[in-house]
Amino acid sequence: MKKYAIIVAGGSGSRMNSAIPKQFICIDNKPILFHTIQRFLDYSEKIEIILVLPKEQITEWDKLCNQFSFSPSIKVTHGGASRFQSVKNGLALINEEGLVAVQDGVRPFVTRTILDQTYQLAAEKGNAIAAISLKDSIRSVSDNITKSEDRTKFKLIQTPQTFKVSLIKKAYLTPEDPLFTDDASVLERTGEKIFLAEGSPQNIKITTPEDLIIAEALIKNFVY
Amino acid sequence: MKKYAIIVAGGSGSRMNSAIPKQFICIDNKPILFHTIQRFLDYSEKIEIILVLPKEQITEWDKLCNQFSFSPSIKVTHGGASRFQSVKNGLALINEEGLVAVQDGVRPFVTRTILDQTYQLAAEKGNAIAAISLKDSIRSVSDNITKSEDRTKFKLIQTPQTFKVSLIKKAYLTPEDPLFTDDASVLERTGEKIFLAEGSPQNIKITTPEDLIIAEALIKNFVY
Repeated sequence: MKKYAIIVAGGSGSRMNSAIPKQFICIDNKPILFHTIQRFLDYSEKIEIILVLPKEQITEWDKLCNQFSFSPSIKVTHGGASRFQSVKNGLALINEEGLVAVQDGVRPFVTRTILDQTYQLAAEKGNAIAAISLKDSIRSVSDNITKSEDRTKFKLIQTPQTFKVSLIKKAYLTPEDPLFTDDASVLERTGEKIFLAEGSPQNIKITTPEDLIIAEALIKNFVY
Repeated sequence: MKKYAIIVAGGSGSRMNSAIPKQFICIDNKPILFHTIQRFLDYSEKIEIILVLPKEQITEWDKLCNQFSFSPSIKVTHGGASRFQSVKNGLALINEEGLVAVQDGVRPFVTRTILDQTYQLAAEKGNAIAAISLKDSIRSVSDNITKSEDRTKFKLIQTPQTFKVSLIKKAYLTPEDPLFTDDASVLERTGEKIFLAEGSPQNIKITTPEDLIIAEALIKNFVY
């Protein structure tokens, strides 16, 4: 089946205390977003990549591509007011059946194994969501009461979140809900069962200055 | 109120693929455990520190103390077969009322602010548990069905977990249960309400080779 990837790079630099959007900050001397896109280019030449960027960042994107001589053959489209709208804009560019991986632009440590497993499981089951077990204890919080929970009964969710195109396009017709923090929750709303694949603790989302320090260290030891 | 700290260092090097126990692995050229202990020494000279170590690691501990000229004025006691038993052994050395912080030996990035806030809240409320919000989406897993959960209704739990001595000593009379993954869950079993204090994303528990890479990067930028 044809493979697609939607790379969602909607972030600002606010939580990063940075004037430049977090996806454009460099690790190992290259913008984070370039690393993320490169993982998919390295995975397969035949993959069709759609980058979703805020409209006001397109000029900067073009400038960076020139500066770093990065000229991937990908489609670029404008982001919306929320992650939900941005993914929806990306999906609008896909008109054939296939498998689509939705990936956070600031999650550059996805591996070939994770991509393989999520595309394969999605081909079989309709969807596959990268997830990891909890290392720390967890408590639920409700009305100021906290309660210890069995951590083996929870998974932390990452990207890629990979889907049969027709399923996820249909799911994104659902009205937006603030509880949609990822694509799996959008698909779930349509009644589909969600399937988890093994992510990796290294596959972090870079959102804070500490994450940037961590990412700079991880990339020196990263095995794709 | 008198302040105590129990530092629990029961780990082996198994998940670390290391021949030496993880708490003895060096970051910034000093064993992780020394960093953790130093945070409490720096916090207050008057704090009474109890280190709980597996019996078979005491010789190595003494050797490392000599090698690094580290001679803190602390009590050292033997660990038990589980974290529960180890903390219980540590508590057995405390015979006066006060406040006790239980701290993972491999969590060296605790800050003065976290220590301040947990000791203070525990003085007021009886307990205070360092916790952080989730950055990732979370799903619950039960009988192979996964369900999206509202991540704002959960907290990831860290140490220090700080208590009034009498409360936590009484709680540790409870029979051990595999669901006790931390001290808060032991106290909760006695019917006490649990109170959370703000931890920090940097306050990681070092358990895997990736954590070691991350810790080595964090420590160069660490602000106590």
